[in-house]
Amino acid sequence: MPSSEHDAPHIATALRLAASAIRLTDPNPRVGCVLCDAEGRVIGQGHTQQAGGPHAEVMALRDAQAQGHSVAGATAYVTLEPCSHHGRTGPCCDALIAAGVRRVVASLADPNPLVAGQGFARLRAAGVEVEVGPGADESRELNIGFFSRMIRKQPWVRMKVAASLDGRTGLQNGVSQWITGEAARADGHAWRARTGAVLTGVGTLLEDNPRLDVRLVDTPRQPHLVVVDSHLQTSPDAHIFIAGRAVWIYAASRHNEEKAAALEARGATITCLPNLHGKVDLPAMLQDLAARGINELHVESGHKLNGSLLREGCVDELLVYLAPKLIGSGLDIASHLHADGPLTSLTGALPLEFKSVDMLGPDLRIVARVAGRDHF
Amino acid sequence: MPSSEHDAPHIATALRLAASAIRLTDPNPRVGCVLCDAEGRVIGQGHTQQAGGPHAEVMALRDAQAQGHSVAGATAYVTLEPCSHHGRTGPCCDALIAAGVRRVVASLADPNPLVAGQGFARLRAAGVEVEVGPGADESRELNIGFFSRMIRKQPWVRMKVAASLDGRTGLQNGVSQWITGEAARADGHAWRARTGAVLTGVGTLLEDNPRLDVRLVDTPRQPHLVVVDSHLQTSPDAHIFIAGRAVWIYAASRHNEEKAAALEARGATITCLPNLHGKVDLPAMLQDLAARGINELHVESGHKLNGSLLREGCVDELLVYLAPKLIGSGLDIASHLHADGPLTSLTGALPLEFKSVDMLGPDLRIVARVAGRDHF
Repeated sequence: MPSSEHDAPHIATALRLAASAIRLTDPNPRVGCVLCDAEGRVIGQGHTQQAGGPHAEVMALRDAQAQGHSVAGATAYVTLEPCSHHGRTGPCCDALIAAGVRRVVASLADPNPLVAGQGFARLRAAGVEVEVGPGADESRELNIGFFSRMIRKQPWVRMKVAASLDGRTGLQNGVSQWITGEAARADGHAWRARTGAVLTGVGTLLEDNPRLDVRLVDTPRQPHLVVVDSHLQTSPDAHIFIAGRAVWIYAASRHNEEKAAALEARGATITCLPNLHGKVDLPAMLQDLAARGINELHVESGHKLNGSLLREGCVDELLVYLAPKLIGSGLDIASHLHADGPLTSLTGALPLEFKSVDMLGPDLRIVARVAGRDHF
Repeated sequence: MPSSEHDAPHIATALRLAASAIRLTDPNPRVGCVLCDAEGRVIGQGHTQQAGGPHAEVMALRDAQAQGHSVAGATAYVTLEPCSHHGRTGPCCDALIAAGVRRVVASLADPNPLVAGQGFARLRAAGVEVEVGPGADESRELNIGFFSRMIRKQPWVRMKVAASLDGRTGLQNGVSQWITGEAARADGHAWRARTGAVLTGVGTLLEDNPRLDVRLVDTPRQPHLVVVDSHLQTSPDAHIFIAGRAVWIYAASRHNEEKAAALEARGATITCLPNLHGKVDLPAMLQDLAARGINELHVESGHKLNGSLLREGCVDELLVYLAPKLIGSGLDIASHLHADGPLTSLTGALPLEFKSVDMLGPDLRIVARVAGRDHF
């Protein structure tokens, strides 16, 4: 039997371990590791812990040790290149080498161009056999935000919209609670939980005063909150101020220093990034969020900010919940999509690719990607 | 083994035969029949032919005869109650009795309240064992238009819409060709092919001059064409006039007798059904179409007529093709849905139920039913 047939189930297990850590590891990537002895028996497994905690390889080594297994001569299956640098933890390469691992099968190289391949080189230099490739697509997809931040220097931006089948996100009077049902709302919280930060606009805060935290599913950590608020209209009493969660407000200016001080007293961090129109420079904001370690950014905003983000090319993916309703006239997903007014040709439409579609109770969930945005 | 375990595969075969006749039997129902001998071996099968031709039971009896099988003592599996009346063909009950069939398993009774049960009674009176029920839901669903016409005295109305993910059926300048791709367009023709008539509005004729026939899939017959044209604006040179297909124009008046005569010279049938607003009375039109034998009506129209049909409660089902695009502002599925202006509460939205969702090339196809409309 070729080695790939032996390897596939162990890489699949490692990917499942990685996926199980999807709400935990941020801003680190979701990585899983499986250790097998020479007969292919699993002797240890683990996944990356929260930031500052051990990586997947160390967890798997500890697991093997706790079970009394020797790792000498073992194969390590890991869904990302083992690290070779001293961060908050020691290099995983050194731990694998020290434990006597004979062979490493890794899904793909570290996306950071400054360190990519160094882990593999270090392992090979120590005589460890290294094979790269199995599970690469799945591992990259699971960590698309981490890859985006490392390679594009901006988060992977996913915009959540709940709309009726005729594309209405709310009534003309602004009423939008609740277009979709319970299952879709819980699913929306699950998508929040995997992200580094939830982004909204000040309009949504003033209209709905939402918490925008994760409540309907279990999570070991809350994503941060980002507000686009050009003129610092956010109230210091807004529900977004929740203990333990960072609130980052992007403004065009600190023209109201008293208000700025009041928001900072509530724990907000205010960053001024004006564009030429006196609004927040959204692409610059994405760069700044990446610099702060945000891998995936989850947008839940109104149609105006949604339109601006789409128009300025800031959106990678749409998470659309379609409710089985026809509303008729009302607010649209993207009525502000085109700055120069309505299109005159279909070639000007924003092209997407449907990634998945699923029923959630009575509603549909569609994941659509802006065409080509994942080619980085 | 209880008889239901023997029966299930034969009813399933009979349903497949019925479904294979979906483009053929109109205005008759799609019915399949399987004959089995005492050992459960299939000795004959068939489905209803085109109107005026033999029904499923007669086709199955002929099939058995052609293969040299005796039907004496056989079981007949049939997806609808065998007819007991002399129409263009003799009663199927009599044919089954004459052939010596011992037992009949039928999915469900004839929906026509004037004849329902008479076939079963006639069979039982002749000593034939009758069982009713297996495959009832599937058979009714396959013939939902026939059931609608028989019970509600109106066709089952399915509205086809092709829209972008943000619910735009076209640009503000009217451009709508082609929002969806080839696979979705061919699928749309398959849905046309199963219907008794395709309905459109004069606005669509004047703007696009479409043929609205079945071209992209094979079909033994073309559905008729219905035009809602209050003021007889249809051109006698319109592409809808295709040899062998009935064209029925519903108007509010024959105020332009010369135009009416010109359209009739092209083969059109003009029917005046005005409502109080000087437009076509759409519910009355549906009654008239049912009286003319239309089981399923396939609507392909613009947003104005779509809105009127939805608003007046004439639509049973939506066939929505969603293209992976965002268009922004443009024409909507149902911008004319609410006569009294925009909704002020979500409880006024038209409730739907998603029946199915499938990928067709790059596009999605969603079948959504107006909630409760199939409860008749």
